[in-house]
Amino acid sequence: MAIITLTTDFGEKDHFVGAVKGAIYNELDDVKIVDISHSVSPFNVLEAAYILQNAYSSFPKGSIHVIGIDSELNPENKHIAVKLDDHYFICANNGIMSMICNEIAPEKIVEINIHDKTSTNFPVLDVFVKVACHIARGGTLEVVGKVITDIKPIKNLNPFVNDDQSQIIGSVIYIDNYGNVITNIRRKFFEQAQKGRAFEISARSYKFKEIHKRYSDIVNFDLPEEQRQDEGRGLVVFNSSNYLEIAIYKSDLATVGSASSLMGLKMRDTVTVNFLK
Amino acid sequence: MAIITLTTDFGEKDHFVGAVKGAIYNELDDVKIVDISHSVSPFNVLEAAYILQNAYSSFPKGSIHVIGIDSELNPENKHIAVKLDDHYFICANNGIMSMICNEIAPEKIVEINIHDKTSTNFPVLDVFVKVACHIARGGTLEVVGKVITDIKPIKNLNPFVNDDQSQIIGSVIYIDNYGNVITNIRRKFFEQAQKGRAFEISARSYKFKEIHKRYSDIVNFDLPEEQRQDEGRGLVVFNSSNYLEIAIYKSDLATVGSASSLMGLKMRDTVTVNFLK
Amino acid sequence: MAIITLTTDFGEKDHFVGAVKGAIYNELDDVKIVDISHSVSPFNVLEAAYILQNAYSSFPKGSIHVIGIDSELNPENKHIAVKLDDHYFICANNGIMSMICNEIAPEKIVEINIHDKTSTNFPVLDVFVKVACHIARGGTLEVVGKVITDIKPIKNLNPFVNDDQSQIIGSVIYIDNYGNVITNIRRKFFEQAQKGRAFEISARSYKFKEIHKRYSDIVNFDLPEEQRQDEGRGLVVFNSSNYLEIAIYKSDLATVGSASSLMGLKMRDTVTVNFLK
Repeated sequence: MAIITLTTDFGEKDHFVGAVKGAIYNELDDVKIVDISHSVSPFNVLEAAYILQNAYSSFPKGSIHVIGIDSELNPENKHIAVKLDDHYFICANNGIMSMICNEIAPEKIVEINIHDKTSTNFPVLDVFVKVACHIARGGTLEVVGKVITDIKPIKNLNPFVNDDQSQIIGSVIYIDNYGNVITNIRRKFFEQAQKGRAFEISARSYKFKEIHKRYSDIVNFDLPEEQRQDEGRGLVVFNSSNYLEIAIYKSDLATVGSASSLMGLKMRDTVTVNFLK
Repeated sequence: MAIITLTTDFGEKDHFVGAVKGAIYNELDDVKIVDISHSVSPFNVLEAAYILQNAYSSFPKGSIHVIGIDSELNPENKHIAVKLDDHYFICANNGIMSMICNEIAPEKIVEINIHDKTSTNFPVLDVFVKVACHIARGGTLEVVGKVITDIKPIKNLNPFVNDDQSQIIGSVIYIDNYGNVITNIRRKFFEQAQKGRAFEISARSYKFKEIHKRYSDIVNFDLPEEQRQDEGRGLVVFNSSNYLEIAIYKSDLATVGSASSLMGLKMRDTVTVNFLK
Repeated sequence: MAIITLTTDFGEKDHFVGAVKGAIYNELDDVKIVDISHSVSPFNVLEAAYILQNAYSSFPKGSIHVIGIDSELNPENKHIAVKLDDHYFICANNGIMSMICNEIAPEKIVEINIHDKTSTNFPVLDVFVKVACHIARGGTLEVVGKVITDIKPIKNLNPFVNDDQSQIIGSVIYIDNYGNVITNIRRKFFEQAQKGRAFEISARSYKFKEIHKRYSDIVNFDLPEEQRQDEGRGLVVFNSSNYLEIAIYKSDLATVGSASSLMGLKMRDTVTVNFLK
């Protein structure tokens, strides 16, 4: 049975998501529709790219991923369908695919050309659903678009190492539900630059000299529970997606606060790693 | 396979939605349950009516729509089931159906009478699920209720044209995830009143003399991207549901603001269209 | 077809929920995945226990409930799978199961021991999904863990009656989407302590001498609608889960306010019932 996932900035309240699901069921009786997220910040391509990259690969090969972020068709925002890693992605060519394509080369990219001449204010419903159902029925990308070779990049997506190899300059690309702050520095990139050296991670005035294996590594389990003061302490981990993350142990925005709120870290802020000689 | 949709003000956190889905699966093995929205503002019948109207018609004929908004049974709030446009709706008779019934005459309305004598604090679970599953199994409305002819209206739902035909007086009926402000003025109503005349749309102190075909129509694509100043600009469109909408280009409540926040527009505020001679 | 439900504090935005669903579909083709809640407050075991208790029993026997709240494996937080009331529960042994186990004795509890030696930062994906799919395929608990006899309790879960039987001392265990305040005093507990006596319920400075059958019982339907002043009035009911609840009639946090906001009641606040002689 075909799987179609949805990643949008439509929010949880409006009729948009329901209308899209209804339209899919109207075309396909035998399909699983799975929500990845509808709470991407409006028009936030970077957030959507991060969410999609870390969700899609759990799904079975052949899954079809519809992404409804900033998808209005205009001269600078064309619609594309991409085959990559045996998954299908349908979205606007606005940078969303650049994070995934950074890691894995696409097998095929087409610019969708099945639009009617009439304009639409709801391209996910009017265009993306049609393309998704076409693929679900076994159709090829060439039928719905013309092959292109490049996708639009996101600016400043990747961290870089300075000239004398003493520093990684990265930035914040996502803040999660726990207020944890995720940088664009991946484990592999870090280790290649590190070459075994000691390091100090800096974000604003906060410094960290250690990367923990899991959040609760900072807890001293030898102490009786009532003597511990771990909740609300800052730490750095490689998260489950292998990105360098600044976290607060058992953070909760509504109570103890979070890495984002307590340290004042926000999207696109700089995070550096200084290697010691 | 039967489709049952859910539209409620239960929110995303509590157990209510999960309990309702569990109860449906307990009665029917072969059913698709689809969330339309659970984030309707509490007891907000007008919001629910707008969401439902714009979502339901995407679904296949025969779909069953359960609406859990202000559904406690009391002398003034009876439960009804409605067949309309080959769809089924189960809800309280509190005005929710009046927006859809405004457009399409119901084929049949019944007042549900399968309640036990005992009161319930969870009628969606205890009553609506039973009715939905009855319909899903092919049962008729007459078995679960007695036929009635009228449903309760929502007050001030429709815009009106003044005596000398120079003005449409409408109001805000919904504010969407992007903070865009949706009025009760539909395209067809507008065009019939307009008779080809020029116009000026007023909302508080804001005036608009043009209705765009799509949001990005206000962008000057001839300018280099860094010279444009389009994000955050106000505009008017007929939205994908054909309602007159006051929007902000690429609005985001958390950053550039939205039509609602920037112009101070809220539910039920007046929006007028003045036709020029 | 197997049913797997999900109750987590992952929120509605991040990739976590999508990744978990993808992983389940990767293992099982024929399964229904049902969201109970992903908006549990971070690490809030008490909230999760309340939500789960009131949702699970609607589902068919044999359903598998995955709970992802505070599930990082560490010396004090082991993973367990529980069979109870012909349902299966997979979670950390952090108190989540104590509310349900308070009512119904578990048939079997195992401490999960299928972990690799490598640590994981995403145990719901890496461990709980494997266990859930194992059970969905008909596997037994003994294959994935060793039998244990006790689960970790939540402190101060239950209300108590004072020595001279004149008072119930309870506390707030949940605040729902309507801002209604739910106490740990259940109907049966109340009635056993009451022994038919009159009573006064106290929460902060607010007093209630009556428990209503439904919310709209406070409305005087004999009055014309425009003369009524019921919206925003406080009342007490046993809610649909049979917990004593302090509510506001037609509350909405964004407009009239709620029991929580208007009376200043929050999680773990004391609520007492004084019986009159």
